Amino acid sequence: MGSFRGHALPGCFFLTAGLWWAGRFSLRYATHRTKRLSSNSTSTRMVSLSSQRRLEVIEGSTILFFSVVGMLAEQFAPGGPHLHLYDYTEQHWDKLHNWQHATMYLFFGLAGVIGLLVHTTGAAPLALDRLMLAIAFFMEGFIFLYHLHGRAMLDVHIHQLLLYSVFGQALLSFLEVFHRGNILLELLRASLTILQGSWFWQIGFVLYPPSGAEWDLMDHNNMMFITMCYSWHLAIGSAHCQPGLLHRQLCGTIQIEEHPSHGDGTAETQRERAGVRG
Amino acid sequence: MGSFRGHALPGCFFLTAGLWWAGRFSLRYATHRTKRLSSNSTSTRMVSLSSQRRLEVIEGSTILFFSVVGMLAEQFAPGGPHLHLYDYTEQHWDKLHNWQHATMYLFFGLAGVIGLLVHTTGAAPLALDRLMLAIAFFMEGFIFLYHLHGRAMLDVHIHQLLLYSVFGQALLSFLEVFHRGNILLELLRASLTILQGSWFWQIGFVLYPPSGAEWDLMDHNNMMFITMCYSWHLAIGSAHCQPGLLHRQLCGTIQIEEHPSHGDGTAETQRERAGVRG
Amino acid sequence: MGSFRGHALPGCFFLTAGLWWAGRFSLRYATHRTKRLSSNSTSTRMVSLSSQRRLEVIEGSTILFFSVVGMLAEQFAPGGPHLHLYDYTEQHWDKLHNWQHATMYLFFGLAGVIGLLVHTTGAAPLALDRLMLAIAFFMEGFIFLYHLHGRAMLDVHIHQLLLYSVFGQALLSFLEVFHRGNILLELLRASLTILQGSWFWQIGFVLYPPSGAEWDLMDHNNMMFITMCYSWHLAIGSAHCQPGLLHRQLCGTIQIEEHPSHGDGTAETQRERAGVRG
Amino acid sequence: MGSFRGHALPGCFFLTAGLWWAGRFSLRYATHRTKRLSSNSTSTRMVSLSSQRRLEVIEGSTILFFSVVGMLAEQFAPGGPHLHLYDYTEQHWDKLHNWQHATMYLFFGLAGVIGLLVHTTGAAPLALDRLMLAIAFFMEGFIFLYHLHGRAMLDVHIHQLLLYSVFGQALLSFLEVFHRGNILLELLRASLTILQGSWFWQIGFVLYPPSGAEWDLMDHNNMMFITMCYSWHLAIGSAHCQPGLLHRQLCGTIQIEEHPSHGDGTAETQRERAGVRG
Repeated sequence: MGSFRGHALPGCFFLTAGLWWAGRFSLRYATHRTKRLSSNSTSTRMVSLSSQRRLEVIEGSTILFFSVVGMLAEQFAPGGPHLHLYDYTEQHWDKLHNWQHATMYLFFGLAGVIGLLVHTTGAAPLALDRLMLAIAFFMEGFIFLYHLHGRAMLDVHIHQLLLYSVFGQALLSFLEVFHRGNILLELLRASLTILQGSWFWQIGFVLYPPSGAEWDLMDHNNMMFITMCYSWHLAIGSAHCQPGLLHRQLCGTIQIEEHPSHGDGTAETQRERAGVRG
Repeated sequence: MGSFRGHALPGCFFLTAGLWWAGRFSLRYATHRTKRLSSNSTSTRMVSLSSQRRLEVIEGSTILFFSVVGMLAEQFAPGGPHLHLYDYTEQHWDKLHNWQHATMYLFFGLAGVIGLLVHTTGAAPLALDRLMLAIAFFMEGFIFLYHLHGRAMLDVHIHQLLLYSVFGQALLSFLEVFHRGNILLELLRASLTILQGSWFWQIGFVLYPPSGAEWDLMDHNNMMFITMCYSWHLAIGSAHCQPGLLHRQLCGTIQIEEHPSHGDGTAETQRERAGVRG
Repeated sequence: MGSFRGHALPGCFFLTAGLWWAGRFSLRYATHRTKRLSSNSTSTRMVSLSSQRRLEVIEGSTILFFSVVGMLAEQFAPGGPHLHLYDYTEQHWDKLHNWQHATMYLFFGLAGVIGLLVHTTGAAPLALDRLMLAIAFFMEGFIFLYHLHGRAMLDVHIHQLLLYSVFGQALLSFLEVFHRGNILLELLRASLTILQGSWFWQIGFVLYPPSGAEWDLMDHNNMMFITMCYSWHLAIGSAHCQPGLLHRQLCGTIQIEEHPSHGDGTAETQRERAGVRG
Repeated sequence: MGSFRGHALPGCFFLTAGLWWAGRFSLRYATHRTKRLSSNSTSTRMVSLSSQRRLEVIEGSTILFFSVVGMLAEQFAPGGPHLHLYDYTEQHWDKLHNWQHATMYLFFGLAGVIGLLVHTTGAAPLALDRLMLAIAFFMEGFIFLYHLHGRAMLDVHIHQLLLYSVFGQALLSFLEVFHRGNILLELLRASLTILQGSWFWQIGFVLYPPSGAEWDLMDHNNMMFITMCYSWHLAIGSAHCQPGLLHRQLCGTIQIEEHPSHGDGTAETQRERAGVRG
């Protein structure tokens, strides 16, 4: 939907998802380290395991719900195609932009469904949820890539910048298939999701300014400012991944000397995962 | 062969291969998990090991057979070059498109031969079959890449989309050299093979429509539709990878609580492989 | 700052950082191997562990200090924007180049802050310092990439060459998240940092020659020379990574026969790390 | 040197290197598997270890020798720059192509020197030889990449194809830093080296035909033929990597049933390496 609201809607989705992931992953990291010190009993692990699974189920349902909302909005909002793909009277495709956006939501919906299946039935390999997420992000970027023909320079540029975060998320999700539970990959993915969400808002403000003051879409200085603005969004977005870490720092005792094995992220998470799964 | 049948033929090959792989890998995943619960005796493993090898031999022979069929069809079909490469009378290369297609089949034929050698004699390292498959897919994409000069916009675009699945298959096969038996890589490769097969049919229907109604090859809306259509093919193609998983879900008991170690795909397959090979 | 000094300043920063890393990593490699032979007591390891951490803290503080210096220089040097981003009287962005350079310094400053946090409090996963460094290098390259519109051919080319080392450093830092302590990745990163530093000087000499003799920015031969010159910089830069290795060679006894396990870099560093952390 | 002999010389170098590697790696693979069956005593391993090191030293010396020969030929052959870089009388760079070729040889010479240092003194990490080889191949490709401005279409295309094998070799050598001794990576690198060597000859025959019959450098059909020709070179080149494997097959007994652990290439080589080094 080429409008301010059409960009604000996905912006809200991705902002919410990114902030949720940032909070969830950084708090899990903080609590796990504390827990490891106090108790290592099997019952605690079981509780942790089932609560993790419950979170994943809630996540899958939410993604599915918002994807369906997005698809319906693209199809049945005023001016939408109402499921008509081809206009036989005028012999051309009907409202392809709406159809393309609905397709993007479709893949996120599939990722939600698969996430639900994986975590409720256990019939599929666990990492399939991350793989579907990687595919959903990749297809979003793929459709955007061929979405920009014949637009103004700044319009193309501002959407291209979006692709950095989208393909970055696809790559990170794919890496998580092999390095599941790596806190750094998870937090970086959360940062990029926040970046994507806030950037959708930025696109809305630049291309459909609510204040009415139009941007000059062919001005080279605007392009340079937008590029820099993108990096600021990343800096602010990644700052939201710190709360769990700071929380740990504030209420944590000085545990470093006693725990010289606070190794790199990989070794860290392997033990962590062993704690969760084992 | 620039014709509907010239695209339908490889389409059938890749569709068959993709559906076969999807069925084989997902069923192997489903049965292995069930088997692990019931019996772990060495004799069962031996049976499984030799049946796996028999499947690989059948696969290699089939790939080899269809590659030879494809090469002969490109060379000796009416209008083919009949092994003449250079036309000395008119001083130019003869029917280079047919020669290029035959070269693509050649590399798949080599992959079939190597697969046969690896699994019948054991003289070569096991992962060589996946490496040759990666090379075969890469060379297919490589030749396609330089195959499209001076064609119409939609013609170029629809072939370029094919390259996503071809290079994706090459990359996944190469990753399987290092992560052999990872169910997710295998199913993703199967999905991309189905996608490639169905896309060949799509190309045939768009460029050489049997109904006779020509597509406008320079219409930008057609390009946007085709891009979206490609993503639908992927969604439908990957749905065919679920039967084994669903089968397991339907006849499987709730085994998750008893098996808290149902880790990520990697750990999964390592144990699985140990079960098969060890 | 489009001036000789504006390129010499970051050149000094990166040269210093690169030489420091080259010396630190190669000497650590040399001494660890010697130490492993003589003593393996726990107390030695503790000393080594805390001295490593102290070095990281000093490094983080230094990076932070020079980033702040760089940001202040870009903002408040004569001709700088003095924190004004938009010129309301003339309706355009103000001194965007300075703002972009300050943004680059900002990300290095963030990397310094995170490095300090990681190594003083232990609240965050250890590998986060390398991840932030990777992001800082990536954002530097990203901003440079969209920084070069409408310049002369040689100007564009000489800055593009810089991107090889910048994105190379980003990639190597990201790999270090997973392979922390791998001496080869560390030395290669040091080499590329030296290369980036010396190349900033080269850019200064070519675009703003202190001698006054202007280069012809459209001459194709100059481009070819500059390309070759870049590879010489790399050759000379990587030579500075050898002192620690040579030192070991000079004072080391012939230890190879007694230690047939001098494996590849990976195995090497895992044991090394175990020595440091364990 | 823009001449037939200027392309035949590096062609010979790379062909020799590729065939040598193909023979060495495939024979090592074949003999190791046989040896593991018959004897596992420590003395055998010591012999194998020292013979491996002797081979590496010979290799390093040979690479160094031919690099020096190449550099001298580029500099002092009739028409070479004789170490003059800048022509002060005519104010332009002198014979930059020769200088660029000499720079390529320089990096291979450095790789040879480092290989010698690594395997004679043991002062540096073992994997450094592969890293230097990766850098040497990368710099060769890098310089070629900016070497082709303003040439005819076929001339550019035929050199671009070379870049596939050059960057492929760089990537494979870099992967060997982490997966040293993986037989598949080694054989693939050998194949690409043979491909590069034979392709240099092909370039010589196309651009400077000894028969005198000039190729039409702007003919699109020639480009398509050359692309296909490249894939044939790869097919023939990789066939030379099979002798060791075939040798094993011919004289090997059926050992598969007795050795169910003939795992994938990675596991294979890890044990192999343990046999060599341990």
